[in-house]
Amino acid sequence: MTPPSRQAARLLSSSPAIAEAHFRAEAYPYDARLRPDGWLNLGTAENRLLTDLHTGYRPPPLDDASTRYAPLYGTRELRERIAAHLGDGIDPEDLVVVAGATAALDVVATALCDPGDGIVVPTPYYGAFDTDLAGRSGAVLLPALPDPADGHGLSPESVCRVLYAARRAGTAVRAIALASPANPTGRVHPPALLAELAGLAAEYDVDLIADEIYAGSVFDGPFVSLRTFPEARVHTVWGFAKDFALPGLKAGVLHTRDPELREAARALAYFAPLSTHTQAVLADLLADPGRVAAFLAENRRRLAVSHDAAAGLLTAYGIPHAPAQAGCSLWADLGAWLPGPGFEGERELWREILDRTRVSVLPGEAFHAPRPGWFRVCHTLDGAVVAEALTRLGRFLESKGGARGEGRDRVAGSARPLV
Amino acid sequence: MTPPSRQAARLLSSSPAIAEAHFRAEAYPYDARLRPDGWLNLGTAENRLLTDLHTGYRPPPLDDASTRYAPLYGTRELRERIAAHLGDGIDPEDLVVVAGATAALDVVATALCDPGDGIVVPTPYYGAFDTDLAGRSGAVLLPALPDPADGHGLSPESVCRVLYAARRAGTAVRAIALASPANPTGRVHPPALLAELAGLAAEYDVDLIADEIYAGSVFDGPFVSLRTFPEARVHTVWGFAKDFALPGLKAGVLHTRDPELREAARALAYFAPLSTHTQAVLADLLADPGRVAAFLAENRRRLAVSHDAAAGLLTAYGIPHAPAQAGCSLWADLGAWLPGPGFEGERELWREILDRTRVSVLPGEAFHAPRPGWFRVCHTLDGAVVAEALTRLGRFLESKGGARGEGRDRVAGSARPLV
Repeated sequence: MTPPSRQAARLLSSSPAIAEAHFRAEAYPYDARLRPDGWLNLGTAENRLLTDLHTGYRPPPLDDASTRYAPLYGTRELRERIAAHLGDGIDPEDLVVVAGATAALDVVATALCDPGDGIVVPTPYYGAFDTDLAGRSGAVLLPALPDPADGHGLSPESVCRVLYAARRAGTAVRAIALASPANPTGRVHPPALLAELAGLAAEYDVDLIADEIYAGSVFDGPFVSLRTFPEARVHTVWGFAKDFALPGLKAGVLHTRDPELREAARALAYFAPLSTHTQAVLADLLADPGRVAAFLAENRRRLAVSHDAAAGLLTAYGIPHAPAQAGCSLWADLGAWLPGPGFEGERELWREILDRTRVSVLPGEAFHAPRPGWFRVCHTLDGAVVAEALTRLGRFLESKGGARGEGRDRVAGSARPLV
Repeated sequence: MTPPSRQAARLLSSSPAIAEAHFRAEAYPYDARLRPDGWLNLGTAENRLLTDLHTGYRPPPLDDASTRYAPLYGTRELRERIAAHLGDGIDPEDLVVVAGATAALDVVATALCDPGDGIVVPTPYYGAFDTDLAGRSGAVLLPALPDPADGHGLSPESVCRVLYAARRAGTAVRAIALASPANPTGRVHPPALLAELAGLAAEYDVDLIADEIYAGSVFDGPFVSLRTFPEARVHTVWGFAKDFALPGLKAGVLHTRDPELREAARALAYFAPLSTHTQAVLADLLADPGRVAAFLAENRRRLAVSHDAAAGLLTAYGIPHAPAQAGCSLWADLGAWLPGPGFEGERELWREILDRTRVSVLPGEAFHAPRPGWFRVCHTLDGAVVAEALTRLGRFLESKGGARGEGRDRVAGSARPLV
């Protein structure tokens, strides 16, 4: 071919590091007996705690309803069941089902933005947002610094500053986007902060995009969806990857009460429809609300156990970390062990960990962390594997020395100033 | 929301008429007993002849392999089975599996084109190309007239004229695109014409995109894939919608031997991945080549029977038509019954047919037919339904009068000059 289009080249230059790291680590996975020198993948936020709950389930047969053309934004049956599942009196007509949460984020970003338009994103943020929200839409992500008090909490004030500066610089800002619960930190944003953010979006006449993929994976405290806020211009994304531990099924759901956005999203869904048979599988899984409630309760219980075990190991090795309330990961502070300054130092430590321990954890730079040293540690896989990985990591850091004395205590965050 | 982005608005303004017509007709379908006044949908190219062959098939369970993250351009297992199925020594690494043939066409168009770039498309062409190839990529489709000898055959000379004129006018033409076998005509392009077209593409330094979704649905004569031509810059699209009668599963496949395009296509596939469980279903369906060969042979047999029955009814009612060699449809010439001139007359006849007979057939204008009067008649559904529909259509046209004497004979095409 002649060179790829500029829009394809833009995408190629921002290939998501998370996906690449995942497949490298999965190509030769650790096994205590077979591959004791294999990789331990704590880099991927994949919930592998529920596999046994799906075992024995037989999917529905291939029949007319599960194989014929259906509305390309989701069958009415699946949208009704998702609406009932998510609750809050959702209208199934306000749901757009597409091939994954990535596609849902792309759909809402493309519906809102033309190339060059801005989306403000509080940091640290899910690294794949760079691709999901901007890769095809051509939007530009504008990072907003976190609350300086702990270095990673949501700061509406900071979002406001970025909005204001971008407007002054002539950028057409169209939206604020965030993961709620947060990723990588696994934090549940306080409802008062979310309300402040929604108010800010309304004040600045921009839309609010909330990636709520972990809505059903909150194991510590209550969670309030931004969907329940009165603003019509709040658009939420959910899916079956995390709460139901079905990431391969690529079922993403956009909710919006904005009729114009819904119409645009339905038109865009045409390019990323979800298999009708997979829709039949998911509708079947949601058919019994009692069973679903029990499944999700068990998910929350296992997530908490898994989180606490991982946090305990980090504490035992004197690794500071911010405890999570939701999701698959912990946010660990290895700042004390950086071999050099800045994100170059963080990259160096990351490579050392990979080379010396074969443990894959993702560096904070991949999440636009505002200062180097943070790493996202996923814990939602077999407990023995997590223990092996964190033991390798802990011993490696011990061998390097340099751990701070206070690292032996579990800390809620780093008190070091932002770099 | 503030108004949708310009790129979303462009898409909304070109909403595919075919999909709209489908769901309107399907909302109240004809049933001899229950809904004798219902709609008869001969507008959708959906192969419903094979439903019984899928009955009783039990899909594989939800296990690790069918629910976990997998390469977003298709599992190695499915790509290997598709490669073996399509034959010709395909390298599975040259296949990119995405959520439908539409997504595959969007992927290749976006990889090749920036907004404003041109794709030459011989007419008449599959109407959804306007959305599939141009809706997200921003490419501009440049129609090339058919062979004047019969009014719908492939004319490389005409493609050449459009290429030349577009270049002179300053348009960056990036590709030629066509359906092979053809849609709406169901014609198999003669290999010599395809070779000429491939040579022309090379000469003009443009890529060639072939939508071969009907490759396994040729019931009259041999078929040669453009994939087997030596040119590296031929990119073919295939899927399971037609040959396997599984349109809802949204499994599209792009084949390319161009490493740069493949890399761009893999990056774009990230936005439209196919459910891993559906991939497991399809890999399972392809597992036994003997069973697949028998399935496809039965498909071809049933397509031929269905086609001949529909053609016979058209002939009986004196409706001229071009016999098809492949696919789900016939190309019928109702030019003699147009109530007025031009495509306005065609639209008027279309509305009359809808209102008076509740038969949905799509007007040639939806396929960029170069002169008014042609309609695409799909025949791949229950024979009694097709008979009811064509009887209603035939009687309605009889009631209008105006049929040409020669209409009573089956003709290969219209001898009327282009309008």
